[in-house]
Amino acid sequence: MGPYPFSAIVGQAEMKEALLIAAIEPALGGVLALGDRGTGKSTAVRALAALLPAVSAVAGCRYRCDPADRRRLCPECRARRVGGRLPRERVRVPVVDLPLGATEDRVVGALDIERALADGVKAFEPGLLARANRGFLYIDEINLLEDHLVDLLLDVAASGENVVEREGLSLRHPARFVLIGSGNPEEGELRPQLLDRFGLCVEVRTPTDIGERIEVVRRRDAFEQDPAGFARRFAAAEAGLREAIVAARRLLPMVAVADEVLALAARLCVALGTDGLRGELTLLRAARAKAALEGEIAVTPAHLRAVAPAALRHRLRRDPLDESMAGARVDRALDEVFVA
Amino acid sequence: MGPYPFSAIVGQAEMKEALLIAAIEPALGGVLALGDRGTGKSTAVRALAALLPAVSAVAGCRYRCDPADRRRLCPECRARRVGGRLPRERVRVPVVDLPLGATEDRVVGALDIERALADGVKAFEPGLLARANRGFLYIDEINLLEDHLVDLLLDVAASGENVVEREGLSLRHPARFVLIGSGNPEEGELRPQLLDRFGLCVEVRTPTDIGERIEVVRRRDAFEQDPAGFARRFAAAEAGLREAIVAARRLLPMVAVADEVLALAARLCVALGTDGLRGELTLLRAARAKAALEGEIAVTPAHLRAVAPAALRHRLRRDPLDESMAGARVDRALDEVFVA
Amino acid sequence: MGPYPFSAIVGQAEMKEALLIAAIEPALGGVLALGDRGTGKSTAVRALAALLPAVSAVAGCRYRCDPADRRRLCPECRARRVGGRLPRERVRVPVVDLPLGATEDRVVGALDIERALADGVKAFEPGLLARANRGFLYIDEINLLEDHLVDLLLDVAASGENVVEREGLSLRHPARFVLIGSGNPEEGELRPQLLDRFGLCVEVRTPTDIGERIEVVRRRDAFEQDPAGFARRFAAAEAGLREAIVAARRLLPMVAVADEVLALAARLCVALGTDGLRGELTLLRAARAKAALEGEIAVTPAHLRAVAPAALRHRLRRDPLDESMAGARVDRALDEVFVA
Amino acid sequence: MGPYPFSAIVGQAEMKEALLIAAIEPALGGVLALGDRGTGKSTAVRALAALLPAVSAVAGCRYRCDPADRRRLCPECRARRVGGRLPRERVRVPVVDLPLGATEDRVVGALDIERALADGVKAFEPGLLARANRGFLYIDEINLLEDHLVDLLLDVAASGENVVEREGLSLRHPARFVLIGSGNPEEGELRPQLLDRFGLCVEVRTPTDIGERIEVVRRRDAFEQDPAGFARRFAAAEAGLREAIVAARRLLPMVAVADEVLALAARLCVALGTDGLRGELTLLRAARAKAALEGEIAVTPAHLRAVAPAALRHRLRRDPLDESMAGARVDRALDEVFVA
Amino acid sequence: MGPYPFSAIVGQAEMKEALLIAAIEPALGGVLALGDRGTGKSTAVRALAALLPAVSAVAGCRYRCDPADRRRLCPECRARRVGGRLPRERVRVPVVDLPLGATEDRVVGALDIERALADGVKAFEPGLLARANRGFLYIDEINLLEDHLVDLLLDVAASGENVVEREGLSLRHPARFVLIGSGNPEEGELRPQLLDRFGLCVEVRTPTDIGERIEVVRRRDAFEQDPAGFARRFAAAEAGLREAIVAARRLLPMVAVADEVLALAARLCVALGTDGLRGELTLLRAARAKAALEGEIAVTPAHLRAVAPAALRHRLRRDPLDESMAGARVDRALDEVFVA
Amino acid sequence: MGPYPFSAIVGQAEMKEALLIAAIEPALGGVLALGDRGTGKSTAVRALAALLPAVSAVAGCRYRCDPADRRRLCPECRARRVGGRLPRERVRVPVVDLPLGATEDRVVGALDIERALADGVKAFEPGLLARANRGFLYIDEINLLEDHLVDLLLDVAASGENVVEREGLSLRHPARFVLIGSGNPEEGELRPQLLDRFGLCVEVRTPTDIGERIEVVRRRDAFEQDPAGFARRFAAAEAGLREAIVAARRLLPMVAVADEVLALAARLCVALGTDGLRGELTLLRAARAKAALEGEIAVTPAHLRAVAPAALRHRLRRDPLDESMAGARVDRALDEVFVA
Repeated sequence: MGPYPFSAIVGQAEMKEALLIAAIEPALGGVLALGDRGTGKSTAVRALAALLPAVSAVAGCRYRCDPADRRRLCPECRARRVGGRLPRERVRVPVVDLPLGATEDRVVGALDIERALADGVKAFEPGLLARANRGFLYIDEINLLEDHLVDLLLDVAASGENVVEREGLSLRHPARFVLIGSGNPEEGELRPQLLDRFGLCVEVRTPTDIGERIEVVRRRDAFEQDPAGFARRFAAAEAGLREAIVAARRLLPMVAVADEVLALAARLCVALGTDGLRGELTLLRAARAKAALEGEIAVTPAHLRAVAPAALRHRLRRDPLDESMAGARVDRALDEVFVA
Repeated sequence: MGPYPFSAIVGQAEMKEALLIAAIEPALGGVLALGDRGTGKSTAVRALAALLPAVSAVAGCRYRCDPADRRRLCPECRARRVGGRLPRERVRVPVVDLPLGATEDRVVGALDIERALADGVKAFEPGLLARANRGFLYIDEINLLEDHLVDLLLDVAASGENVVEREGLSLRHPARFVLIGSGNPEEGELRPQLLDRFGLCVEVRTPTDIGERIEVVRRRDAFEQDPAGFARRFAAAEAGLREAIVAARRLLPMVAVADEVLALAARLCVALGTDGLRGELTLLRAARAKAALEGEIAVTPAHLRAVAPAALRHRLRRDPLDESMAGARVDRALDEVFVA
Repeated sequence: MGPYPFSAIVGQAEMKEALLIAAIEPALGGVLALGDRGTGKSTAVRALAALLPAVSAVAGCRYRCDPADRRRLCPECRARRVGGRLPRERVRVPVVDLPLGATEDRVVGALDIERALADGVKAFEPGLLARANRGFLYIDEINLLEDHLVDLLLDVAASGENVVEREGLSLRHPARFVLIGSGNPEEGELRPQLLDRFGLCVEVRTPTDIGERIEVVRRRDAFEQDPAGFARRFAAAEAGLREAIVAARRLLPMVAVADEVLALAARLCVALGTDGLRGELTLLRAARAKAALEGEIAVTPAHLRAVAPAALRHRLRRDPLDESMAGARVDRALDEVFVA
Repeated sequence: MGPYPFSAIVGQAEMKEALLIAAIEPALGGVLALGDRGTGKSTAVRALAALLPAVSAVAGCRYRCDPADRRRLCPECRARRVGGRLPRERVRVPVVDLPLGATEDRVVGALDIERALADGVKAFEPGLLARANRGFLYIDEINLLEDHLVDLLLDVAASGENVVEREGLSLRHPARFVLIGSGNPEEGELRPQLLDRFGLCVEVRTPTDIGERIEVVRRRDAFEQDPAGFARRFAAAEAGLREAIVAARRLLPMVAVADEVLALAARLCVALGTDGLRGELTLLRAARAKAALEGEIAVTPAHLRAVAPAALRHRLRRDPLDESMAGARVDRALDEVFVA
Repeated sequence: MGPYPFSAIVGQAEMKEALLIAAIEPALGGVLALGDRGTGKSTAVRALAALLPAVSAVAGCRYRCDPADRRRLCPECRARRVGGRLPRERVRVPVVDLPLGATEDRVVGALDIERALADGVKAFEPGLLARANRGFLYIDEINLLEDHLVDLLLDVAASGENVVEREGLSLRHPARFVLIGSGNPEEGELRPQLLDRFGLCVEVRTPTDIGERIEVVRRRDAFEQDPAGFARRFAAAEAGLREAIVAARRLLPMVAVADEVLALAARLCVALGTDGLRGELTLLRAARAKAALEGEIAVTPAHLRAVAPAALRHRLRRDPLDESMAGARVDRALDEVFVA
Repeated sequence: MGPYPFSAIVGQAEMKEALLIAAIEPALGGVLALGDRGTGKSTAVRALAALLPAVSAVAGCRYRCDPADRRRLCPECRARRVGGRLPRERVRVPVVDLPLGATEDRVVGALDIERALADGVKAFEPGLLARANRGFLYIDEINLLEDHLVDLLLDVAASGENVVEREGLSLRHPARFVLIGSGNPEEGELRPQLLDRFGLCVEVRTPTDIGERIEVVRRRDAFEQDPAGFARRFAAAEAGLREAIVAARRLLPMVAVADEVLALAARLCVALGTDGLRGELTLLRAARAKAALEGEIAVTPAHLRAVAPAALRHRLRRDPLDESMAGARVDRALDEVFVA
């Protein structure tokens, strides 16, 4: 059965907006969704991927190489290109789940033992990173994953390439994907330097409104009893959202950012004491994507303000004298800076 | 010798009802039975499986594929279906024990080394998950199992599919089974997020009534001395129960749930502060199965109330100010909500 | 040299009786002997095995299959039976030591690497469990063994079958043996749920009577200097004991148990607060074996009382308010219940 | 896309100077950059490497052997040299990243399994150390690397040779590279004896000036939107810097050091209580490289003073009575000694 | 060069006597020498072995099988014996050192990989236990050895057979040796149940007499400068000692032990509260060997008294109220019991 | 480039003398140099080896066997000797570094996998111990090495033979080398029983004299800029030192030791409470070598006194009431004993 429609998701506005922004500007660095279990995080990622338009890829390529991105072709496409223009096909945006307990060799890829034994050649067998190229890599309970694996995934997501140095293999292939992590901070925390590498961080809560809860359960039940009929109910809403994303992607490179907006971003980060300049770069990019999604050609302070909590809440240092929630500290700094 | 008859089990009403509900609505998410050792949990699972009617499967299929569920055929049945209609056979409902110390490769399945060495092909050798398809997977002392293995089993039980990504293998096969875990919370606890993924959770106690105890020991002794004669004593009761299950399964999709009932469920979960909406979805499904078992066409608040303890007791947060048992807290919330 | 004669063992009455009961009713669940080192536990097990009559087995079978137990033949005997009646031979009752550091593959059995390499077939090479079939498996210092291995041994001892799921092997063969564990609780304890799975538990102490000690040392020294002569001294006593065991085995299925006796057992277990009903089932079986050994056709309260300490002392919960020895608590409960 | 231009880096003067000095005098022992994440340390290393002139290497050599350094040719070049003069080619200065989780065999090199299996010969497959020869080896988060790997890298960096003693291999090949480590001391510290083996140690901080921050973000954004155009903007500055480096390298062996300067260095180290004489040797070499970079033919006390913080701050013992920062302690000692 | 002569050892009377007793009665269970390093423990073992007369063994047998001990021949000698009488040769008494870090497979023996690969047969390659048969196995710093290896060695030493159950091998071969362990209790202790399994335990101290020390150093220096000349100086003393041992071995089975002596031994052990009866059996055997060494035909209380410290000091329980040395407690008990 | 000349080393008198003594009397047991990093310990070892005269070895022998030491030839030389006189060649004294992270198989030697696979024979591939035969084995940061590896190295250094018992290999080859360890006690200590096995132990400090420091830096810089010219400056001093060593080796067996000197040594060790007699033996040997180096034919108390700190400082027990440095305690005992 097809996935649950993105536009049928009840509530969860911050998570939905963060996912849309990441779909428009994948260079942001992924989304980390923190909060209660059973609130539909995995459902939303799958729904978004199904919503996105298919992409153009080199026909038959195991990595779904982008024929327009010549600097980052896989070894096989690079070899084929010598012989002429690469054939194309349209493929769906993939969502790859990282199963708990997946070993590093399945993530990164590994020596193809079968071919090694049969033909005596060191062929590469692509892993989950290859499969996620051009799409989403979803990690549930990311706080239970070993740090070195999270780091590896963040490295690849940032560079857009998987560099393999193992078992006598030495190759690189494109691995551009949006990393989506979900986790419950009550069950173990991520190291600060891992948190810092995620672009956006949203908080997800169980709804407390009885009517909203009934609506969630009703829709879920209706979807499971008749997926096709349910999909028809939301077909128009899905189409509208898809068009808005396509338009925003086209508009994005044209959106302007004034120095005053950058100064606001810098003052906000100084006020919050974030390390380095990743926070500011992310604010800039997320606000630009938000503007593009709204069809505007310049970033306003309002755009900045709207994306600031998601862009900064995970970059605060622990302040022993200020035990309020990270979100509240961002809000307070926003109030101070935006007044100033 | 055949298993002990389900209807010969003395007492243990809550456990028996939970198993029946899981047999009628396997999508519930399995049953966790907590409590003393030596109270017949394993006996009850085996008894229930023996009671259920045989199922229709693709003849000769190693996974016991359901010919009516085309979306979830194993790779071999998918290949055979291209050539025409799949042959059928009736097979018994399996009960698979997860032996302590079973390795992940035996659970998930693994590369068939023999064929790899002999024929040079990467064939898959199915594991215990394959063997449990269409039946029950029973784990004694689940609290002593490694968390990652429990998680893997819950993942597969939830999705109904075993996705294999190991040793260069990449395949999926159906693995629809009811997971039954048993354990003694005094000997180690499950992580909250594992607890939450079980559908129902029942408590099992050693009986304290002398007469009941004598009856248990007598029946057990009689069964061991003459299994066939003992089975004959309970044959009629077994047949009646089997028919009730078959009827309930047929009725299930037609049972209605009114908004008031859903609102009651939501208020109950809000009162108890359970995370996410899994509790409510489980309440809905369990109450519907209970109604079907009783031959009714609509869920009543009484059905909800009857299944609420088993559906919710394992989803409560630790409340340091309220050290009463989880069951008592559910009861108190039921009293408040159902009066309201 | 032959083993030390069972009837030459000085003192140690409780241990000797527990071993005899286990020899008459192997379904009891084995014997755990706790106490000082150097008190002849291992000697007693070997002595008992040498005393028991040889058994009838399928001729040439690696598992010593019982031709009378068709439900539990090994794969090879099952295959041979298709071709006709199985040939028979008489074999001695084996005693298998579990050497410290034995690996799980030697215990359970493993892939026969030699045949795998030579003939390319996955043949099974039986392990110690196979070798112990129809006899005794002795584990010295069981409290130093890893819990999962103890659990595995208890599982097999309880089911009478070794189910192998490893290295691509999947088979079962008979493994009916009496498990005898010995250990010193001062050097590390068994987990309660392992304790509970042993049928009987006896305490063994160093004798403090000087005369008894001299007699032990004298006999041991005499035995070592002239084993054959020593054996002749005790030949008649051994023969008498062997006949008593054979008679008791024949009588066992005919021994009756009245409801009053079962009620006494139940009251005793309730008074002691043992979990589950294993204690009562063991009491019933041990008392029945004791009655059979004494040639009686009904279990009396005296039989129950005689075996109660060994059947229950290892099933008590730690009671922080009652630090008396487990044995003393059983005695006190016996006094209360038997008066009542 | 090409790397970010070195001369476009805003601020970070100490880090930039340390990298230039290491490029002029690679025997210094590498650079350790401590401080906040996201401040462009990795960017700077890549920028410097791109800035440096290409080097002359033996054509086709896997190790990029320097044809002018006959004492340190790889086994293959040594063999080829017997047959005559070695052919030459110009190659770019490499920057090799040590990925987190790289195994020792990939770092050091290992047996070429493919050739071992195919041809039965023990051929060597070069690792990252080989690839870094004549260039830079960059380790991000070096404080998270295992100490023994850091030690190995420092050993090789110091000797300029990789001595392989593993898997039956025994060979040596040139591995002259500048080791650049970066890390955040708040997230784990290096052992003192590792710190001591780095030549220079610089501190990197997030800028707090709003204007500087905006300039960093602007430049980064401009670079990412149009790398080629951005590079053109800084082409002249880059060329100038390249010439300065080439000139300094040529001047270096001619720069004189007077005894008074050495005495100042010695007094400074005695005042700071550094162990051994590595501090003094590093001061001498770094001051000489600084003088050469400034085109001067003798080291002055001012040169010494300029490089002293980077050369000594990581060689101070913990002084429990003086908790001021290492940098401040170096400054204070400089004041005392230079006045004296 | 030959070993240092036993009779040239200065002082260390208790250790020397214990070694002689173990050479006369190897069934005692080995000797544990505790105390300072550098006091010649290893020298003494080697010296004793060189002193003992050569033994008769099956010619060419890898295990040095004793042709007179038919019950314990190795599989090869058993096979050869079928074909007739076994050929004989005289071989020296071996001393085998257990090198620190020896793996279990080298100790026990292992599959002969070479023959497995070449001929496809599972041949056994004997280990150190085989090499020690009929001689001494010496373990320096036994307290640093893993407990399970010590246990294994004690098991084999006690049974005189090495039972191999590994890698698909299943065989037994003779392994009768005297186990000599040395260690310094200040550097880690043995578990009580390991201590208890050694027959004798002696304490070795650095001499404090200046003259004795000079003599030790002089002799050692003389020996190293001219081993042959030194050996000639002590040849007569060595021959005398060898004859005394041979005579004592012949006399041993004829030495009588009266009940009064046994009662003394029992009272002593009761007074000391040793667990089990191993202490008494060892006292009996050691006193008998001591009597034989002195050429007497009955054990006297004086013999018992002489060997009691070495036989019992390692079997005492820790007594928190009596912190005096183990040796002193044995002496006190001896005084009490022998007076009584 | 050749190593730094031994006679160009500034200061560090105790270390230099200890190395010379070890070169004259290698049976001493090696040298342990403790103290600051960067003080030229490794330089001194390399310098000494380059200074020593070449040795006569069996031509072509992988172990550099000494043709004059027939008792300790390698298996290959033993085989060749049967065929006649062994050919000779002169070889340089080797210095082997134990790289951090070297595995035991590379140290000890291992099965030659290549030959095993190619020819099916179990050939031995020599390790670092073989390579160090007749020379020096240098371990930097020995306190960071695993204890079992240090122990192994000390064992081999003491016996002069490498006994291999691994992977089915069983052989011995000569491995006579002087073990030099260096370490900083502030970074982890050696176990006392390892310390005790080193012959001499010297303390190395950073010089505090400004002039000396400048001289060290100047010479080092001069050496690195022009190694050949620097070597010429010290050629005569090197030649003189080489002759002194050769003469001392010839004189050594003739140096006498009077009983009074030995009594002084014994009194000194008793006063210091060293365990065993290794201290005294080492004092004797070191003083003899010192006398030989000075061309004298008898050991005087002054010789003893000169070498006593290096021979004894690492053999003192921790004395909680006397926290002065080990060296100071040796000096105090020297004062007392030499006055007495």
